[in-house]
Amino acid sequence: MKKLVTAVLMLLLVPTLSFASEENGIDTGVTAWMITSTALVLLMIPGLAMFYGGLVRSKNVLGTMMHSFAAMGVMSVLWVAVGYSMSFGENILGGWIGWNWDYFFLKGIDTTIMEEGVPEYVFSMFQGKFAIITPALIAGAFAERVSFKGYLVFITLWGLFVYNPLCHWVWASDGFLFNMGADGAIDFAGGTVVHISAGVSGLVAALYIGGRRSYKIGQMRPSNLVMTLIGAGLLWVGWFGFNAGSSVSSGLATAQALTATQVAAAAGALAWMVIEYIHLGKATALGFASGILAGLVAVTPAAGVVQPYGAIILGFASSLICYYAIQLKDRLGYDDSLDAFGLHGIGGIVGAIFLVFFIRDSWMASAAEAAGGSWTLWQQLGVQAAAVGIAIGYAVVVTFIILFIMKRFGGLRVTANEEMEGLDRSFHGERGYGMLNPN
Amino acid sequence: MKKLVTAVLMLLLVPTLSFASEENGIDTGVTAWMITSTALVLLMIPGLAMFYGGLVRSKNVLGTMMHSFAAMGVMSVLWVAVGYSMSFGENILGGWIGWNWDYFFLKGIDTTIMEEGVPEYVFSMFQGKFAIITPALIAGAFAERVSFKGYLVFITLWGLFVYNPLCHWVWASDGFLFNMGADGAIDFAGGTVVHISAGVSGLVAALYIGGRRSYKIGQMRPSNLVMTLIGAGLLWVGWFGFNAGSSVSSGLATAQALTATQVAAAAGALAWMVIEYIHLGKATALGFASGILAGLVAVTPAAGVVQPYGAIILGFASSLICYYAIQLKDRLGYDDSLDAFGLHGIGGIVGAIFLVFFIRDSWMASAAEAAGGSWTLWQQLGVQAAAVGIAIGYAVVVTFIILFIMKRFGGLRVTANEEMEGLDRSFHGERGYGMLNPN
Amino acid sequence: MKKLVTAVLMLLLVPTLSFASEENGIDTGVTAWMITSTALVLLMIPGLAMFYGGLVRSKNVLGTMMHSFAAMGVMSVLWVAVGYSMSFGENILGGWIGWNWDYFFLKGIDTTIMEEGVPEYVFSMFQGKFAIITPALIAGAFAERVSFKGYLVFITLWGLFVYNPLCHWVWASDGFLFNMGADGAIDFAGGTVVHISAGVSGLVAALYIGGRRSYKIGQMRPSNLVMTLIGAGLLWVGWFGFNAGSSVSSGLATAQALTATQVAAAAGALAWMVIEYIHLGKATALGFASGILAGLVAVTPAAGVVQPYGAIILGFASSLICYYAIQLKDRLGYDDSLDAFGLHGIGGIVGAIFLVFFIRDSWMASAAEAAGGSWTLWQQLGVQAAAVGIAIGYAVVVTFIILFIMKRFGGLRVTANEEMEGLDRSFHGERGYGMLNPN
Repeated sequence: MKKLVTAVLMLLLVPTLSFASEENGIDTGVTAWMITSTALVLLMIPGLAMFYGGLVRSKNVLGTMMHSFAAMGVMSVLWVAVGYSMSFGENILGGWIGWNWDYFFLKGIDTTIMEEGVPEYVFSMFQGKFAIITPALIAGAFAERVSFKGYLVFITLWGLFVYNPLCHWVWASDGFLFNMGADGAIDFAGGTVVHISAGVSGLVAALYIGGRRSYKIGQMRPSNLVMTLIGAGLLWVGWFGFNAGSSVSSGLATAQALTATQVAAAAGALAWMVIEYIHLGKATALGFASGILAGLVAVTPAAGVVQPYGAIILGFASSLICYYAIQLKDRLGYDDSLDAFGLHGIGGIVGAIFLVFFIRDSWMASAAEAAGGSWTLWQQLGVQAAAVGIAIGYAVVVTFIILFIMKRFGGLRVTANEEMEGLDRSFHGERGYGMLNPN
Repeated sequence: MKKLVTAVLMLLLVPTLSFASEENGIDTGVTAWMITSTALVLLMIPGLAMFYGGLVRSKNVLGTMMHSFAAMGVMSVLWVAVGYSMSFGENILGGWIGWNWDYFFLKGIDTTIMEEGVPEYVFSMFQGKFAIITPALIAGAFAERVSFKGYLVFITLWGLFVYNPLCHWVWASDGFLFNMGADGAIDFAGGTVVHISAGVSGLVAALYIGGRRSYKIGQMRPSNLVMTLIGAGLLWVGWFGFNAGSSVSSGLATAQALTATQVAAAAGALAWMVIEYIHLGKATALGFASGILAGLVAVTPAAGVVQPYGAIILGFASSLICYYAIQLKDRLGYDDSLDAFGLHGIGGIVGAIFLVFFIRDSWMASAAEAAGGSWTLWQQLGVQAAAVGIAIGYAVVVTFIILFIMKRFGGLRVTANEEMEGLDRSFHGERGYGMLNPN
Repeated sequence: MKKLVTAVLMLLLVPTLSFASEENGIDTGVTAWMITSTALVLLMIPGLAMFYGGLVRSKNVLGTMMHSFAAMGVMSVLWVAVGYSMSFGENILGGWIGWNWDYFFLKGIDTTIMEEGVPEYVFSMFQGKFAIITPALIAGAFAERVSFKGYLVFITLWGLFVYNPLCHWVWASDGFLFNMGADGAIDFAGGTVVHISAGVSGLVAALYIGGRRSYKIGQMRPSNLVMTLIGAGLLWVGWFGFNAGSSVSSGLATAQALTATQVAAAAGALAWMVIEYIHLGKATALGFASGILAGLVAVTPAAGVVQPYGAIILGFASSLICYYAIQLKDRLGYDDSLDAFGLHGIGGIVGAIFLVFFIRDSWMASAAEAAGGSWTLWQQLGVQAAAVGIAIGYAVVVTFIILFIMKRFGGLRVTANEEMEGLDRSFHGERGYGMLNPN
């Protein structure tokens, strides 16, 4: 009904005629939204495959898309086996990771209902999608030049030793970043855990294995910007699950995250369009899509604590800064092929830091209460900066170690022949667009 | 649900074992569905981009898709800034539009819960998606021949001065069409506001700026019907959010809208297929996709008030009439490139008018009660016709004024060179299918 | 938020502040999820169209996709007309099918609320999507060589006389397979009804009409594996609705089905990848996509009764067995073009049979209770085998009869010329990728 009524305080305990589910403690509405969110975040994986796949040369399209798809396979199984336990179990090893045998293959939570009214399975599946998409994002940094087997090994190790610990620190109830400062480092839906960690790890990998052979020599034009644009659209849609689902509720917090997400994406896209008009006189579709992502990334850590005007500014600022960061790439000469660092690393940092200037008063008030007196924006800024710094430092060091060890065993990099031939033929024995050479 | 029922007091205190959200007045189930609907309607934008993008020549594919995407950017920000206020604020300027400072950048509704149990943010985001898709639909009428900058200006003005007032009249609680007759003009999910207004505005624009240079000269075959078909599929899926979400509930009215939507789409597709078999001896994929849309458009105003058999007839009739309307186009010689008028204008009119013959008895009974005695189908038909006429008249006049004014400042139309070169290179400096000319 | 607490039994009757819908008996949360599920299953149709469409030669891409789309048109209308009644009405004709005049065009359930708190319309629409996708799956078996008109007739007859009876037996409350043994044959979301029936019917049709003319002669490479891969991704996402929606709830059972679905898909994909690495030294994208499907198919009957580790094993086993089954095809020489039997038939059988080894103890306990004493896995295995055997036998015989009768009236098979020309031109007068021959 489009008749709007501002709700007044409901004094009466309004009785409900809807009957409850048979299970005690289930909130069917919250469960419905959390399952939907899980589906929406899963939709981001084909979305990302399209976004990345359209940007590479056609000889690498399947190989690039398979980076996203393989993450669905590998991380899903890894997550239910040990990932959920390492991420959301109780502190072990001094809090470096968590562990809980009940979470081992999820065997002990078959009928567990969480405080929020949601079966813990749903929460675990929702979180598992984040463990899929994060390594898939990294792949953009070293697109068109890694072996498929190497990639499989890399994401396995990275998931175990970078993602799970970070996730534990930031989101587990006894994680140290979750408890830093007054009310924890703010990372609503994965600014540090997902985007910064993916971005900087991608940068490390891109530097470590070196650029594509034709980088800076030949032109490497995107093979299918149409697909990239559609991918960006699906990512936007899926991001509603990513951010609004991270409220683990179906109410006000969800609505606030949804709204912030929508306007930040739009503002990011518009900002990139404006910059390009100014610089190039033309607004590219790729730029528009990149702006959408820059906005979405920046609002990810912030979605729960900023109002719409703040989300608009964050989205705008993120696009601006990512745009210049990507220009810088060309000058510094490293080959972050699809700008995983330029968009996710930089955008994530922008969001995680700048969000403090737009935090809702209500959040600050409750933080002050938690701190037992006062709590200033600058104190929160310190917490955010610390969390960002720790995430960067940890991801850089462990990713480097992984790559270093992998090198002893063949490493990540393709051979010159494989690269020339393209990933599709070299590693998958196929070509993406058979219609170009019909039989 | 656009049928408005002020919630009556609930007398029994039925206890529930599901526990509630922390916020007073939230219905977590309704909120879950409304957020999901919002995501589904957003999915229609890439869906529309694919539908339209596949129909144009490959030199215009990105430019055409960018019409949809740019609307996501521009209208999203415009909507939270002023659009929601103009549409759902209280009557100002004699009821021409609404206004409410609380809605300015949504600043005053950060914690507002609506009577329906949904945070107002969610309702605002849901409605905002309609403000995105409507101008994006128009773009089909003047595809392949407008400048990107001109388009950005056009949708901004059109959104402000056509969409927002119409939306206010039809859906705001003090809108004059919302209150016309016994229980208002019926427009469940946007027959007048979205489809008729988009269709006739598109027609005006197509006439005003003239046809494509190669119209009626060369053949202009669709570059990617595969994509068009997929787009139609996504539109169908997303339309569930569009129509069933318009109930602003998660119950019977939602279910009824869902069912009507599903069968109308199917009936529309079948009807088009049958007509083509009769006329051409072949059923085209484009025709099938067009039939899906014709059915969906016609059921949009009707989804809340018709039973399945009525929806089937509406879908069938709409396809039939749209089919002939599109044939007429070729005779009259105007270039509604992708049949925005032929499908959305005509289909919307068919639905808004013919729905009266299939209205549920219960609706008529409550209308009679509201009228304080009797209310006949013919009286409702009069109301529907008046609403349709007003929507058409208003959209035609104001769109014309916008185009007229824009012409002083460069206008919407591309130059001959730009048109020949294609939108993609002229305005975006890119090509959609790089794989056709690999590097 | 992400703080996890195992909920204990809630002893207090926690009152809720969320207010209810105006309709008695509605659970807005369950309704929200069931409508969402309906949308997700509908998304599988374009997903399937993409999966299949990418695998055929480009001259058949539209024709192949139209098999999926036409099923949306035909089966939707057929379902509300008589399908729902035949499937979920009360036993008639000795229980061969059901019937209920209230279900005729759904006229009698306009305001019916089911015991589960969901409007019956929603359940009917959800179920109707299964009636769409099942014949669409069959189409993979005889891709690239059936006439469009023939296909329309075939799915109409097949839906009426194969799908509806099977659906009635397995899922209607008085269906004989639903009541076989202690607690019925287990088919949570359509192992027998959907996948086995589609698979074996496809096999019968493929054998009956013969292989493609160029089968085993020329090479027939997929025209668009990129699209196939995206299609597999959408199928995975949509399958959440398919399986988790089949709980007709939004709680624990939903969560369990969701989790099983996710890990089975992943395990299936990994298994296929591993086998290919061993056999071919390369992991194809097509193999990965096939593995996703093999896992999803196998878990479909099982999703409600197995724990994650069981789902992983099922997915793995299904891929293994389907892989070898498909190799067998080449030796036996029948042309199941897109492996409808190899994936859906075999995978469905694997799931329906092997699920007994992973059934939750709680299910077995309640089955024993229903049996009034004891109930062993081997007894349930017998029930499952019987259900599978009956589904296979019935589908084989009736599909054969349909094909036999159809042959009197022109049959399903295209002419040699039509086949050479391709379905797109022969039956739709179009080509899918106009961009390859731009105007």
